[in-house]
Amino acid sequence: MAGTDKTQTSITGGPAVILVHPQLGENIGFAARAMMNGGLSDLRLVAPRDVWPNPKSFAVASGAEGVIEAARVFDSTAAAIADLHRVFAMTARPRDLIVTVATPRDAATEMRRVVGEGAKAGIMFGRESKGLENDDIALADTVIQAPLNPAHSSMNLGHAVMVMAYEWFQAGDETPGRTLSLGRTDLATKEELMTFFRRLEPELDACGFFHVKEKRPIMVRKIRNIFQRAGLTEEEVRTLHGILSGLTRRSRTPGNRDSDD
Amino acid sequence: MAGTDKTQTSITGGPAVILVHPQLGENIGFAARAMMNGGLSDLRLVAPRDVWPNPKSFAVASGAEGVIEAARVFDSTAAAIADLHRVFAMTARPRDLIVTVATPRDAATEMRRVVGEGAKAGIMFGRESKGLENDDIALADTVIQAPLNPAHSSMNLGHAVMVMAYEWFQAGDETPGRTLSLGRTDLATKEELMTFFRRLEPELDACGFFHVKEKRPIMVRKIRNIFQRAGLTEEEVRTLHGILSGLTRRSRTPGNRDSDD
Repeated sequence: MAGTDKTQTSITGGPAVILVHPQLGENIGFAARAMMNGGLSDLRLVAPRDVWPNPKSFAVASGAEGVIEAARVFDSTAAAIADLHRVFAMTARPRDLIVTVATPRDAATEMRRVVGEGAKAGIMFGRESKGLENDDIALADTVIQAPLNPAHSSMNLGHAVMVMAYEWFQAGDETPGRTLSLGRTDLATKEELMTFFRRLEPELDACGFFHVKEKRPIMVRKIRNIFQRAGLTEEEVRTLHGILSGLTRRSRTPGNRDSDD
Repeated sequence: MAGTDKTQTSITGGPAVILVHPQLGENIGFAARAMMNGGLSDLRLVAPRDVWPNPKSFAVASGAEGVIEAARVFDSTAAAIADLHRVFAMTARPRDLIVTVATPRDAATEMRRVVGEGAKAGIMFGRESKGLENDDIALADTVIQAPLNPAHSSMNLGHAVMVMAYEWFQAGDETPGRTLSLGRTDLATKEELMTFFRRLEPELDACGFFHVKEKRPIMVRKIRNIFQRAGLTEEEVRTLHGILSGLTRRSRTPGNRDSDD
């Protein structure tokens, strides 16, 4: 997860991606790009339909050229998975087979465990037109089926590889669900925020904003809550001071109100 | 989740997908297909670069033609999101902005909540070459950043839409992580399995497999464990009976052993 060194992050020992009889060169390229996004690098092709290497794959690779160059071509699915200990088959269509069916998320968790134990895993994807054949699925330990719109559950090949590469990475990632990104500034302290309120509220008194006296406490609370909730930075509190200075200066200079508008 | 009626499953009230200045028609088509996979249908385009409607979008739609036909085109991002209550911006590149950053998973959970409360949500995606501009990101409530290989975190536009459509669907889905799919048969009962063992073990005695007598109990346990663990169906137990019948018939017919091989 740490660092941005290409070599380090692309060699993960993650699952091999096995494309069985892929038809379009572009889709092999899209699959390679998706693999790179998820930190995967072991691409295997079983008897691709078109010429290999395929220039159309490189055309859409966007940085994943290395994955395509290192791809290995096999004559059969059995040969492509021979060195693997745990094999998954991704398919949209449930067949008349007795198989363990896992979600992408559950499968990714299992892959992390298997790989963590020093074993080698792989995920098979079928050809674009009809997915994996039963003979290929029978070679897998587990079928992966993504819960998707039942009326349109068939994914584009590159998209299917993206979902698995994404879930593989998520299964090993600890990014918190939600964070505040601060750019180059720091969050304001409560004292900085209070200093702003101690300037704002007297100005609101002076301009007659709190004209119903008994409602002043509740209005103050509501106003403080707006700025409190925003999670302001130091810089933003300075901007608010500037706005306040500008608005109050303007209202104190008679004649300006109309001439500037 | 239930049923396969196209109309029903594609109108979900899910988030709108807003493509800001998309460049390639193919990517709009791939985005539409990904939306259909996740049950989304509200596609909005902000000033697409090429002619619209674009035949290249339809060429890759694979069933999502309806989403493309219903897509609305806007002149500006502000116009495209005007009716939405909660807007997300997906970007690979952290900018110098003070923003809440969420993972796709966390954002999808929030979208389900927002939509469940009757509000309208949307997700903005930037142009292929450089993603969203800061002016667009500033219009969003939350930035979505997928945890991915830091050396190659930039996703293809269609892939990025796929990740969000996938997470949107997962956030409302209750498929168990792992199930056994049985095809057309039922799991075998323990009695059916025991009946097989009560045939198998005497045959193994007869052929001399258990030649070390004191090891018989542990060997029986190991053999039973193999078949126990496999989670066999009725049909598979019948197949095992057939194998046993075949092998024992063969060994009892003198002369067959050589002539058939």
